[in-house]
Amino acid sequence: MVSAPPKPRPSSGQVPSSRERSLVPVGMATILPHAAKQVRRLEEQLLAQVSRWGYDEIILPTFEYLDVLAPGLEPELIEHCYQFVDRTTGRTLLLRPDATAQIARTVAMGLTGATLPLRLSYRTSVFRYEQEHAGRGREIFQIGAELIGLDDVTSDSEVIDLMIECLHTIGLRSFKVSLGHVGFIKGLLMRSGLSAQGQKLAEQAAARKDLPRLEEILATERISKTSARAIREAPELYGQEEVLARGRVLAAGDPALAAPLERLAQVYQLLCAAGHRESLLLDLGEFRGFDYYDGVVFDVFAEGMGAELGGGGRYDHLIGRFGRPLPSTGFGLDVDRLFRTVEFPEEGSISARVDYLVAAPRRAARLLTAVAAQLRRTRSRVVQQTIKGSDAALLSAAVTAGLAQQAAALVVVGAPGMDDDDVLVVEPLAAYRQSRLPAGRGAVRTGNLSHLSKKVGLVDLVAAARRSRQQVKERS
Amino acid sequence: MVSAPPKPRPSSGQVPSSRERSLVPVGMATILPHAAKQVRRLEEQLLAQVSRWGYDEIILPTFEYLDVLAPGLEPELIEHCYQFVDRTTGRTLLLRPDATAQIARTVAMGLTGATLPLRLSYRTSVFRYEQEHAGRGREIFQIGAELIGLDDVTSDSEVIDLMIECLHTIGLRSFKVSLGHVGFIKGLLMRSGLSAQGQKLAEQAAARKDLPRLEEILATERISKTSARAIREAPELYGQEEVLARGRVLAAGDPALAAPLERLAQVYQLLCAAGHRESLLLDLGEFRGFDYYDGVVFDVFAEGMGAELGGGGRYDHLIGRFGRPLPSTGFGLDVDRLFRTVEFPEEGSISARVDYLVAAPRRAARLLTAVAAQLRRTRSRVVQQTIKGSDAALLSAAVTAGLAQQAAALVVVGAPGMDDDDVLVVEPLAAYRQSRLPAGRGAVRTGNLSHLSKKVGLVDLVAAARRSRQQVKERS
Repeated sequence: MVSAPPKPRPSSGQVPSSRERSLVPVGMATILPHAAKQVRRLEEQLLAQVSRWGYDEIILPTFEYLDVLAPGLEPELIEHCYQFVDRTTGRTLLLRPDATAQIARTVAMGLTGATLPLRLSYRTSVFRYEQEHAGRGREIFQIGAELIGLDDVTSDSEVIDLMIECLHTIGLRSFKVSLGHVGFIKGLLMRSGLSAQGQKLAEQAAARKDLPRLEEILATERISKTSARAIREAPELYGQEEVLARGRVLAAGDPALAAPLERLAQVYQLLCAAGHRESLLLDLGEFRGFDYYDGVVFDVFAEGMGAELGGGGRYDHLIGRFGRPLPSTGFGLDVDRLFRTVEFPEEGSISARVDYLVAAPRRAARLLTAVAAQLRRTRSRVVQQTIKGSDAALLSAAVTAGLAQQAAALVVVGAPGMDDDDVLVVEPLAAYRQSRLPAGRGAVRTGNLSHLSKKVGLVDLVAAARRSRQQVKERS
Repeated sequence: MVSAPPKPRPSSGQVPSSRERSLVPVGMATILPHAAKQVRRLEEQLLAQVSRWGYDEIILPTFEYLDVLAPGLEPELIEHCYQFVDRTTGRTLLLRPDATAQIARTVAMGLTGATLPLRLSYRTSVFRYEQEHAGRGREIFQIGAELIGLDDVTSDSEVIDLMIECLHTIGLRSFKVSLGHVGFIKGLLMRSGLSAQGQKLAEQAAARKDLPRLEEILATERISKTSARAIREAPELYGQEEVLARGRVLAAGDPALAAPLERLAQVYQLLCAAGHRESLLLDLGEFRGFDYYDGVVFDVFAEGMGAELGGGGRYDHLIGRFGRPLPSTGFGLDVDRLFRTVEFPEEGSISARVDYLVAAPRRAARLLTAVAAQLRRTRSRVVQQTIKGSDAALLSAAVTAGLAQQAAALVVVGAPGMDDDDVLVVEPLAAYRQSRLPAGRGAVRTGNLSHLSKKVGLVDLVAAARRSRQQVKERS
């Protein structure tokens, strides 16, 4: 549902990528821990929002038989698929290029007993050969939602409202949802008397907002000047209510054009009533790339991002291609592009990767495991580590390990002269980093540490950890 | 790391699958919402546990170049891969058959600046051609963890301890972790004077616990009776401490055999000290399927599940195959098999799919959206729906819709004579289901409902929703 052919948009600033790209296929990437954490957090926030609207996740297979899925895919999209022959059956398999087609297949063929309307969501990857210079991934992480079995205005507005709330929930502010109806420009083209082939080509040019190409197509066929003028004007009609007024003039009372405009106006009004006016841009040239859309359509762009972040629309006839006609609408969002668009809060120097590093000399490995387990039971994040070397160097080596693991606090168990119910605590460990002498390569003298480490009863340590987690939970 | 060739195990009961299998390739499946929710819940619980131990998730690409990844894959595994030619480069791509090899590649080639030890986790699918009758998926959902850069006993025990805690966290009780050391049986084979080819074949037979085949291999080469007897005995040595004692007899003072036994004994003792004795089974024939293991190895089985749920072990030389020698150990779990093994609590009749269905006549669509939005802000799960038809039938149609959507409560806004600050509430909606007259096909007369619906101020409704969510949060 996402990643229809992008339109040219004003600014396309270079966005730094946190992905490591060497040795893996272009457009594929390993997402390293720091970025992965942010990507997963985005996904969770999006899925939580979608779930609050009553959408249930469905998990789709990564590849399918081409012949089964083909009715739901554009021929152009099939050409951009990864295909291979199934060794066991000889049939052609393809890595899914689009989640909506898979959901349509599933609803038509597998969910025949389900109560309508169905609200389904997905978190998945789709795979497409894309041109390298477009800077896009070939494995595209998507999250989306489909509302199946309703054909009214409120279902159109529901999915757009939901998509906008999803963007708010991840902290995205400056974005625009461009909102149109494929019926308007299709109606104009049909009325113009263009050949079927001419209409198709003009649709594609309009979808890309490729006005010179559109001009060229119009010039090759004999159509009235009025028609040509209207077709030329439509892709440039974007803005607020005034667009609808101008559209009505172009419709000139033709019900085939007036009906899409009326539908679009109602959806727009509902979304404005929901407080989304600032995020909306009516666009009578809005077309999306997929042929299966047949009603209100939309996509979403953010400042500084050359390609769309997502989009969707109504596809009342897609599920029917799999044998079960059902009106539907939905949207998809490109998680990777959202990741590159959202500004994550700066992590201050006090932030830590884990709550505790629990360290012990090798002889105290059992005690180490037991203390770490107790701390984890408070839901604290705990790394455990045995320390080699002499007892004299234990504390300094533990501090070095704790700093390397970016722990908020260090807990040392089994130090000489300590009994099993007591531990040494260095907290906050980051304070030590600031006071560290320039001794090089993390080497530390124990003398420096005496004022930082304190002896604490294990029971008290665990109680403090529990209180700390409780505070985190209450703040969330 | 998971799904090494399975050993024959006693019982292999038919486990009902919630997957829909028609028209998709054998071994692939769509996971429908009810099951998907349980699968995602399992994944979240597992990842939360892994995170509490300080492991950070890394996200790996779905396909890679064969030539790049091949050093980390067994030749047999490569034969079971999905491969295809990259249209843009002509190089062979493969869908990842194993996450550990990808992580090894990433650590060797991409994470060269990271501080050791590294604790990485993953949630991913791996893809393999599997025999249909094995009843396994070809798209295998895995969650796993790798501890990279440590070669000591405590790191061996850490990953096994973590895996067991993962299984506890999802409520799995009756499972066994079979624990061995590949060095023991390899040492026996080497000492026996078998040819290199004979050793390899014997390893494979031992890994499958295929004793007749092992016998056959031993018979084809001239080795001493003592050696043959020891090799024959090893795969049958499983149990508790007595296994180690018997192993020491077979080792007969040979340090190449005594060292693996000593290492295994230490790991076993640490895990027993951590309280896992009941879950452990020492197994001197334990071998795993992957050639890259070279130390303590383990896999996990549950009652009634013919195939392993997961496993792992030490692979000190795998990352070195990608050019950066680093000792490592890790485990992987098969999420789909866990899903089919875990008993989920019975959902009582009071459970609901969503908290509220908010319904309104079409004319009140804006109010509907506003009320639904207010309820969602309390983190309640809310489906919104406009109702067609006459005002007289509004409440009965809304009840029918609420029951169909399995809502805990029904909220009707915009009913005749109500102002915008008041709503009608039917709660609990399930109570109505029980009292419903046999009127057929969900048709309902409004008369039945008067004693169930009550007029509530919108402010009070939202406050009640907030209290209810607060209670859920406190219970969790």
